[in-house]
This record gives sequence, structure tokens and C-alpha cells, in this order.
Amino acid sequence: MKYSRLYKDTLLNNVIPFWEKYAIDPVNGGYFTCLDSKGNVYDTDKFIWLQGRQAWTFSMLYNKVEKNENWLAIAKNGIDFLKKYGSDDNGDFYFSVTAEGQPLVKAYNIFSDCFAAMAFSQYAKASGDETVRALAIKTYFNILKRKDNPKGMYEKNTATRPLIGFSLPMILSNLVLELEDILEPEEIERTLDYSVHQVMDVFLDKQTGLIFENVFPDGSHDNSFNGRLINPGHGIEAMWFMIDIGVRRKDKALIDKAAQTIITILEYSWDTKHGGIFYFMDIKGYPPQQLEWDQKLWWVHLETLVALAKAYQYAGNEALLNWYDKVHEYAWSHFHDPENGEWFGYLNRQGEVLLNLKGGKWKGCFHVPRAMYQCWQSFENIETQIQ
Amino acid sequence: MKYSRLYKDTLLNNVIPFWEKYAIDPVNGGYFTCLDSKGNVYDTDKFIWLQGRQAWTFSMLYNKVEKNENWLAIAKNGIDFLKKYGSDDNGDFYFSVTAEGQPLVKAYNIFSDCFAAMAFSQYAKASGDETVRALAIKTYFNILKRKDNPKGMYEKNTATRPLIGFSLPMILSNLVLELEDILEPEEIERTLDYSVHQVMDVFLDKQTGLIFENVFPDGSHDNSFNGRLINPGHGIEAMWFMIDIGVRRKDKALIDKAAQTIITILEYSWDTKHGGIFYFMDIKGYPPQQLEWDQKLWWVHLETLVALAKAYQYAGNEALLNWYDKVHEYAWSHFHDPENGEWFGYLNRQGEVLLNLKGGKWKGCFHVPRAMYQCWQSFENIETQIQ
Repeated sequence: MKYSRLYKDTLLNNVIPFWEKYAIDPVNGGYFTCLDSKGNVYDTDKFIWLQGRQAWTFSMLYNKVEKNENWLAIAKNGIDFLKKYGSDDNGDFYFSVTAEGQPLVKAYNIFSDCFAAMAFSQYAKASGDETVRALAIKTYFNILKRKDNPKGMYEKNTATRPLIGFSLPMILSNLVLELEDILEPEEIERTLDYSVHQVMDVFLDKQTGLIFENVFPDGSHDNSFNGRLINPGHGIEAMWFMIDIGVRRKDKALIDKAAQTIITILEYSWDTKHGGIFYFMDIKGYPPQQLEWDQKLWWVHLETLVALAKAYQYAGNEALLNWYDKVHEYAWSHFHDPENGEWFGYLNRQGEVLLNLKGGKWKGCFHVPRAMYQCWQSFENIETQIQ
Repeated sequence: MKYSRLYKDTLLNNVIPFWEKYAIDPVNGGYFTCLDSKGNVYDTDKFIWLQGRQAWTFSMLYNKVEKNENWLAIAKNGIDFLKKYGSDDNGDFYFSVTAEGQPLVKAYNIFSDCFAAMAFSQYAKASGDETVRALAIKTYFNILKRKDNPKGMYEKNTATRPLIGFSLPMILSNLVLELEDILEPEEIERTLDYSVHQVMDVFLDKQTGLIFENVFPDGSHDNSFNGRLINPGHGIEAMWFMIDIGVRRKDKALIDKAAQTIITILEYSWDTKHGGIFYFMDIKGYPPQQLEWDQKLWWVHLETLVALAKAYQYAGNEALLNWYDKVHEYAWSHFHDPENGEWFGYLNRQGEVLLNLKGGKWKGCFHVPRAMYQCWQSFENIETQIQ
């Protein structure tokens, strides 16, 4: 079967039906994301990242695939819950709430806000709802206001070692394109300039060609646990955000550099013994702090497939396609669950299922459907070019 | 070889020499704890838990094993560092500082303080230093003052689900005995009453016989990730603290209940497929949040050996000795490093070394030597009774 067909079929006939069937909370609204391998709810807490992400996914599908009213209703179910229960009096989004919407874990950083903003923006486009559109803008500027001190009073690090983290510029580079219909063009270009510079000049290390997870503001490195940390999935995911920006700006150099970086990171982080991509590594080969460093995570592999597909689509290098085939083979033979649908999230180093779940605190309706959609689109394009 | 002899020899000729040789920072004082498998320093950050714990270990050995002046000097090296760099203006102890003592991670909970207090108390006893004795008392009362809100402003949980954690009553039950020479008898008895009640009546579940990691203040359970969490190593470690209290109070019922609880937890958490004790479990068998749930950790197995040795010493049940032999066999054949000394800290579920280190952010000079000392003492006593 052609890749485009496989990814499209899986998205529409396997992944989306799974979340339509099992994730909706008909009583309180919002989504259950803690679903076991068969889709049964094993925990009812609601994690705001995942509420935003599922609302985004169904809005995006409505906008890009089909004007399916059920998808719009599912998106609205999450948007209404987020509007009602998602944020505190400052408009900062909680990390988690109970099934009924009572706050459980406070707004201790700005990533809940990022995914809420993405959801509001896509849903506003899908529904034409002006209130939600205004909420997307408000949330975006609240994120910018907090971006230099994203953890606020919850920041436990002193100023002794002023490292900056990769997550923020990485997510901004995607968020601002998500909010394209809503923000002023100057705001978009300014934030894209900032993100591309941060990602490609500050965090991308010239010497190794790898993305460091934490660096000093001038891009220099610190010989500490945080300073030595490599998060291959993060680096690769950011590269497809860069390719999207490169396509938008017709910047071939940016696309080529991103494509090369994907290969460099993959060569560095591929587990030659058991296959798959490591979760965390230490640039000097020292023991990482993260006990889960050698595990194989679904999102790392899916983001890699998206990055390789886009890179091959626009840079056309055969090495990218060879890597695609290799990662595709690993991912589909290990994460995909032919029995009950959707993908497992967490494997041990050996590739065995570590947690028998389809969703949890961090895995929801997002990486699998987004990657299925992106790979479908890229390969439809690639296959058309080849014919 | 007799167990008493093996544990004593390993303590004095293998474990202590390792830390004497590799952990001392001769330039700034304090200890390096990030040591690779051969003892080379791979990171110079200083974690306050581990500074306190190593100073405690060498003070304890001086007090209980031998008046070795080198041990006292090594203890002083850590005590001086803690006095100079360990705490902020409130007297709250940081989580970590640089090699030179500059604060890195703030005082976001009270466990650094607990290990500092233990160290000050043992060192005051060893050295007769009145300043350090006063510091032990001051630190202890600072802990009590913070105990109902141990994370202070860093607490991210709302009041929606007011679960209480097991760590605090557990550590208090040991800390107060550590500070026996320093605190008033009424203070000791009051805190022991509180701790025993919390551990044995509130956290120990009557129905399953297991210790829950988080419960409501009345001991009832919550069906959430935190509420379902079982930390077998914590539960078992607390049982030897209970046995120490039972011995002190001549409370045979407490000793027997603790001994039974050790067996119940072991039967629940032993990995029948690969051997060893799981790190985290979910009481309903759902996927835990902790990705490292199935790993085998050094401290879990060592605390289990101490608990079983003490339980067998005072409760004398053959089932305890059978378990001891089984855990001993697993631990010595997997954690012990005959090539370079000391023990590995982290194994994967299969029992292979996951992190090739002898010390890190959490593993220092503490669990291995303390357990070697405790097992040596218990078996010397047991073997004498048998002869």
C-alpha cells in the first residue's frame, strides 16, 4: 500500500474513531485521555495540554480534511470545557483539573496556554466564533508576556546558571503559524524571525550539528546535567517547524539545513542495538538524570516521520527516504496496535510495551493523528511528483 | 561466608574506601557524588541531600564502628561545606549548589533539611562541637515549622484533593531517633507517637496490608494517579524505622506488624518474571505515571535487606529469612560490582545496568554503607543467638 493511503486510512478509519468513541465526557464536557489499550477510561483527571490538543485536532481536521459536523461538535466540547474551567483568574491555564473541572494542579508554566491558544485559533477558524477568536489572541499575548519567566514564582532554579530552554522557541515557531489567521503579519514575521534565530543559531550547535536542550543565551554550553542534555525528539520535531517556515518564506537554505539536521540527530540517537530513537542522551556520554532515557516514545518516532516526510518532500535527498523507511518500519511494527487500534505510547529499550495504554497524562489525541495527517499530505504530494 | 562477615568486609574494605578515595573535593570542600563506575567525577554539582548523607555516614561510622580520625575529618569536610553554603537566609537548605557552593536549585522542600539535621546531629556527637549541635536543633525545629506545607510557595497542587504524602511521617520517624541525644525526651516521644500513628494507622491500608504513598488525612483513598500509587521501597524502609521504634519501646506488637507488612509488600511487588522489586506500582494495576516504574533500584533492595534482617532479628519468623536469602541473592548478583567496587544504582527490569554510575544526583554515600552496617549488626546478633 502507498504511504499516503496507509496514513490517510489509519487516520480516518482507526485513530480518529478511537478518540470519537472513547474520549468524550458526555456528563461534564471535555475529554478523557487516560484510556487503556482497549479504550476504557482508567482515570478521569483532565490534563489541560491534552484538552487543548484534542480540540485542536478535531478543529484542524474540520478545517483541512472535511466539514464533518461531528468533528466540529467534538472540538466544541473541548473548547467549552477550556473556556469554563481551563484557566485561573489571571487567564493562566491550569496544568490539570478534575473530571468536573475543579483545578488540581496550578498554572506553573505556559505550555497549557500554548495548546489552548492553538485550539482556540483552529476552532475560531472552523466555527467563525468571534469570542473564541478573541480568546486565542488574548491567550497568545499572555504567553508572550510570560515567556521570559515562564514558570513565574514556581521557578526553582536560581540565577547562578542562566540556561535557557529549547521548548519555548520551538513551540513559538509552530504556534505563530497556527495563529496565522488571527495575528497581524508583522507580529507573525517578528516571532518567526525570533524563533528561527533561536532554533538555528542559538540551540543548534555548529560543531556537532545537534540541538542542545539547554544553552546559555549566546548559544554556549554548560558542562552540567542540563547543559549536556540532548532530546532527539524535540530537535527533530523543531526541524519540521523550520521546514514549514522555510516553505512559507521560500527559504531553501533553511529547508536544507533543517533536513541535514534531522539526519545528524538521527545518526546520533538511533539505537543500533535494539532499533528506535533514544528519549534522552548526554552529549558527553555520561549517565543522564532521566531514568527513562533509553525508552522509545511514540511522539519521538511520529515527529521524526513527519520531519523526514517534509524534508524529503522539499529537499528531495534519498538519504531522507531511506531513513523514512527505517523509522516507518520500526514505528509500525512496535507502536501500532493492530488488535485494538491507535498506538502504544511507551516502549522499553527492547521495544516491548512498557505501559499498556493508548492515552494518559501526556499522550492524548494529538501526535498520532497530526503525524498521520502530515505524512498523508507529504506522501500524496511526493507520489504525485513521482508519477 | 557468614552474612555478618560479608556485610562488614564490604562496608570497611570496599564501600567506604570508594567514597574516601573518589568523593572528596579538596579544593572547595564538600563531596562529589557524580562518580562513574570507576569513581571518576563526571559532574561537579553538589546535591545537598547527598552532602548531608555522606557527612552523616562518616560521623555514624566514627560514632559506632571506630574512632577513625580520617572518618571524622571527612565528615567535617561535609559539615563545613553545609554550614557555609548549604542554606539560604531563612536557614532553609537548598536542593543543589555548584562545586564552589553557589546556589543552583532553591529550597523547594524540606528533605535537604532533614538530611542536614541528621548529619549535624551525628557529627555533633562525634566531635562534641556545640555550634553544630545547636544547628541540628535549629534545623529540626525549622523542619517541624514547615512540615504542614513542606513545599511552601513551590506547591503546585491546589486544595481540591488534599492528599498527604508518606515521605514526611516516614522520615520523621527516623530523624527523631537520629536526634535522640539532642532533643528533649517529650519531644521525641511526641514525634514518635505522631509518626507511628501516621505510618501504621493512616498510610498502612487495613484491607491490603500495603502502604499507600498518598492518602487523605483520615487514611481513606483517592482513585487518582497519586492516590493509587504504591512505592514498595518506601513502605519497606519505613518498616525498619518502625522496628527500631518497637525495639526502643519494647512494643512487640509493632515489631510483628511491621514484619508482616514487609512480607505483604514483598509478595505484592516482587517481579516474578525477572526478579527484583518494582520501583512503583498502581494499586489497581493501571499504568503508573512514572515511566521508571519497572526499574530495579539499589536503595529499594538495600532497605529491604535491612528491614528483613531487623525483622528476622526481632520477630524470628523463617519466612523473613527465606525472603532475605532471595533478595540477598538478587541484589548481590545484580547491583554489586566486583570489578570496581561499590554498587550500581539503576537496573532495567531485566536486571541489566541502566546507568553506568556509582553515584549521581540521588545516589551518594548513604544507602549502601548504611545497609551494610545495619545488616552486619543484625546478622552478628542473629548468628550469636544461633550458636
